[in-house]
Amino acid sequence: MTIRAVVWNEFLHERENAIVREIYPDGIHAAIASHLNAAGGIEASLAAFGEPEDGLSEARLRETDVLLWWGHKAHGAVAEETVTRVAERVHQGMGLLVLHSGHFSKIFKRLMGTPCSLHWREAGERERIWTINRSHPIAKGIGERIEIPASEMYGEPFLVPEPLETLFISWYEGGEVFRSGLTYQRGAGRIFYFSPGHETYPIYHQPEVLTVIENAVRWAHNPAPAWDDVSAAPNRPVEKALEPIKEKGPRLHQAGEAGYR
Amino acid sequence: MTIRAVVWNEFLHERENAIVREIYPDGIHAAIASHLNAAGGIEASLAAFGEPEDGLSEARLRETDVLLWWGHKAHGAVAEETVTRVAERVHQGMGLLVLHSGHFSKIFKRLMGTPCSLHWREAGERERIWTINRSHPIAKGIGERIEIPASEMYGEPFLVPEPLETLFISWYEGGEVFRSGLTYQRGAGRIFYFSPGHETYPIYHQPEVLTVIENAVRWAHNPAPAWDDVSAAPNRPVEKALEPIKEKGPRLHQAGEAGYR
Amino acid sequence: MTIRAVVWNEFLHERENAIVREIYPDGIHAAIASHLNAAGGIEASLAAFGEPEDGLSEARLRETDVLLWWGHKAHGAVAEETVTRVAERVHQGMGLLVLHSGHFSKIFKRLMGTPCSLHWREAGERERIWTINRSHPIAKGIGERIEIPASEMYGEPFLVPEPLETLFISWYEGGEVFRSGLTYQRGAGRIFYFSPGHETYPIYHQPEVLTVIENAVRWAHNPAPAWDDVSAAPNRPVEKALEPIKEKGPRLHQAGEAGYR
Amino acid sequence: MTIRAVVWNEFLHERENAIVREIYPDGIHAAIASHLNAAGGIEASLAAFGEPEDGLSEARLRETDVLLWWGHKAHGAVAEETVTRVAERVHQGMGLLVLHSGHFSKIFKRLMGTPCSLHWREAGERERIWTINRSHPIAKGIGERIEIPASEMYGEPFLVPEPLETLFISWYEGGEVFRSGLTYQRGAGRIFYFSPGHETYPIYHQPEVLTVIENAVRWAHNPAPAWDDVSAAPNRPVEKALEPIKEKGPRLHQAGEAGYR
Repeated sequence: MTIRAVVWNEFLHERENAIVREIYPDGIHAAIASHLNAAGGIEASLAAFGEPEDGLSEARLRETDVLLWWGHKAHGAVAEETVTRVAERVHQGMGLLVLHSGHFSKIFKRLMGTPCSLHWREAGERERIWTINRSHPIAKGIGERIEIPASEMYGEPFLVPEPLETLFISWYEGGEVFRSGLTYQRGAGRIFYFSPGHETYPIYHQPEVLTVIENAVRWAHNPAPAWDDVSAAPNRPVEKALEPIKEKGPRLHQAGEAGYR
Repeated sequence: MTIRAVVWNEFLHERENAIVREIYPDGIHAAIASHLNAAGGIEASLAAFGEPEDGLSEARLRETDVLLWWGHKAHGAVAEETVTRVAERVHQGMGLLVLHSGHFSKIFKRLMGTPCSLHWREAGERERIWTINRSHPIAKGIGERIEIPASEMYGEPFLVPEPLETLFISWYEGGEVFRSGLTYQRGAGRIFYFSPGHETYPIYHQPEVLTVIENAVRWAHNPAPAWDDVSAAPNRPVEKALEPIKEKGPRLHQAGEAGYR
Repeated sequence: MTIRAVVWNEFLHERENAIVREIYPDGIHAAIASHLNAAGGIEASLAAFGEPEDGLSEARLRETDVLLWWGHKAHGAVAEETVTRVAERVHQGMGLLVLHSGHFSKIFKRLMGTPCSLHWREAGERERIWTINRSHPIAKGIGERIEIPASEMYGEPFLVPEPLETLFISWYEGGEVFRSGLTYQRGAGRIFYFSPGHETYPIYHQPEVLTVIENAVRWAHNPAPAWDDVSAAPNRPVEKALEPIKEKGPRLHQAGEAGYR
Repeated sequence: MTIRAVVWNEFLHERENAIVREIYPDGIHAAIASHLNAAGGIEASLAAFGEPEDGLSEARLRETDVLLWWGHKAHGAVAEETVTRVAERVHQGMGLLVLHSGHFSKIFKRLMGTPCSLHWREAGERERIWTINRSHPIAKGIGERIEIPASEMYGEPFLVPEPLETLFISWYEGGEVFRSGLTYQRGAGRIFYFSPGHETYPIYHQPEVLTVIENAVRWAHNPAPAWDDVSAAPNRPVEKALEPIKEKGPRLHQAGEAGYR
């Protein structure tokens, strides 16, 4: 079964900044999608800020198995409705990969319930990503570590909930550490946050980084049918109780009434 | 150190519905606060929907150690700004107890990042709350179980993230189960969800239920100073790096510039 | 890639007790393996207590992807060396399914680090297994619940660590609840505990129960190469440090010396 | 209520090695206990390898609220019975702090269920311990980091289960990272692993390190009565079921019979 991935990119820096454009002439999303499309079993398409409905209509999300999210300067401009649509689809089972500065995206904060804040420094310093569980599907082919020659520093404390699994932790030349690869489950959806990827460095051209992303797409793909009513809170009427019960006491709701939300 | 608790209540059913009013003439919040104030070491005050700023101004939240939340029919009417203020204070270290139908409150969904949906039935059936960890501070004095003679059924699946600790699981006469006591950590704040408490039954007059709530207030109280800048993402400039580093490569940000949000 | 499963069974009750023998004439392990072998992509073989090395030699474990464990009255008679071999293979990446009374097996207690105790009653009462996450691969094809017409009651508190995922919770006719499906990760190995399966009832002939077991075998299979040195604590000598460092201060160990264990 | 702490030390290096003796003339345990006894509310005593019953008799453990464990070269010589006694007390509610090389102690491996392996280097390099949750009781008074001027490197992968809370992560001069402060719950007992503390460096004289240990003693103290029968698996006979049930089907156990272990 082919995994349908959509790589969403803010796609602003590549158009406005010559340095970034030189590294990613067609955008960060295109660089990532190009790797995914060559990997086998994945069909990756592009979406960007500025497109109608932020490029993520209800219909498109329905046909997306895994969404990748790269954003930075326009987090605040993404429509709340888009965030709600994406969150609902994650709850129904769509996988989500949040990359680098996406830590501060509305969608990541919405799904984490925390500030997702951190410390940072843009100095092109060396980052060494240590693999905590080298046998995890997301770490396939990676080995004990990845070296990023020039990286933006992201430092702890990273204000996220304790993850399902801590997969990668980074060391920085300037003295910081960061939990750079974390997995979460929200409803039926699997989420992976992966921190490397500053736009002024060619990090998304580095094979090991692309391998992690590709692995994570496969891991986040939930082949179960979409859990369409994941947000519903249906009444189970007394007469349909699995064990015979008799109604007792006073009632707030009338028969057939929907619950409050 | 006295714990400053605020019991927030929607306070609508008690005014509109004679059955509820008879059970809680001064409101559910008053019944709970009355127990807390008699417990020793806790100073509980009331807040309600309909008050200015939903009764939870910035100033008041600053002086609140633990907030208790009961809401039902007016979830949608609580201001987004209120939810944001409360969430920020939880991240800074304020404890939060979410009670019963509060599972669908905006604040609980905001902090969980999931639908928080469930199944329900209002039949006054028997609920038996099993204690999973009887040595947990929240279960102090409870023993192996609590019997609720007449309860609203809340049934799994309960769409919340896997908790820090599963403290209570409920059995229902009609055949369902529910994770009725769950702990979470979000930023510096501790959260406890506790499911019993339907407004047409005198559940908040039952001593064991009040004991759990009292215990949970003590548990959720974080005596650490508020983590005021928990949501900030400060830059650590190159010249202040803890290890001497030399800046390399191109830059997106200029010196002294704030990061994007 | 075919998954190599081994179904280990104590295989005592089936030989000693006429009731059990009638239900499982070739043993519980044979009933389970028969389903797995018919499922496609799984090659299941049998192992039993009483065989040399408890049927689980080093060589055999090397060629096992997923081990299923059913034991009851002979837990104490399983050799410590067997438990150590199995635990080591789990750490290296072998999947493990622990079934029913296996909660008290040495291997499960070894991997959990807790008593794994519970309450029980043998009364042939009804058990209703609620699915918490119906989109999890282990719940594929199950839907919202499984009904077991006659089951042994296993009741909370179940003394295990908080799991990675709570997949199933059971309701019992006699008034108890139990976390009947739990996942864990230990080293590179995935573990699934699944509680239904008392030997005097035909539970392992029930299609939904067999489906869960089959799904869990696929889920627990880790295709990564065995993490052979998962238990080693190698020295990284100063001269091979990834960042150039100078040795400072006194030393306990001499160059080339192994660490203590 | 005074917390009764016991600091257990292998106490071999201090007697055999002049360098270690100079730093800790009365032993590492004495240095730690001296701080704890001066801290207020804690009464710390010493226990050591070589004493009868490893210094940890049943009677003594009964009167211990929190046990601290430092061992290194004699892990293998600690009696299995001692490990079983200590584990049982942890399950009943005794707190446990495992320090530095104690990662490879029998008791830590017993409670974790994993190899607890890591990488190491003894080069006196700089370690910087980053606080992940500065508002956690264990981090009280610590701030954003602790600098250890000369430390033994402990590097990932650290083969432990995903913790309850990741409190500290260390950066090392030579290029590694390590999860240096982790919390766990096993039965009613709380466990904290804290990695700094190599015996040839004066780490247990450093105020911040002692503060973390002191905080952790307070955090690990469970004031609940000991859960004496935490390992028992009692039968709940049919006639005492909370809901009236009729026995159905065949039985393996006879009335009043104990379960298998």
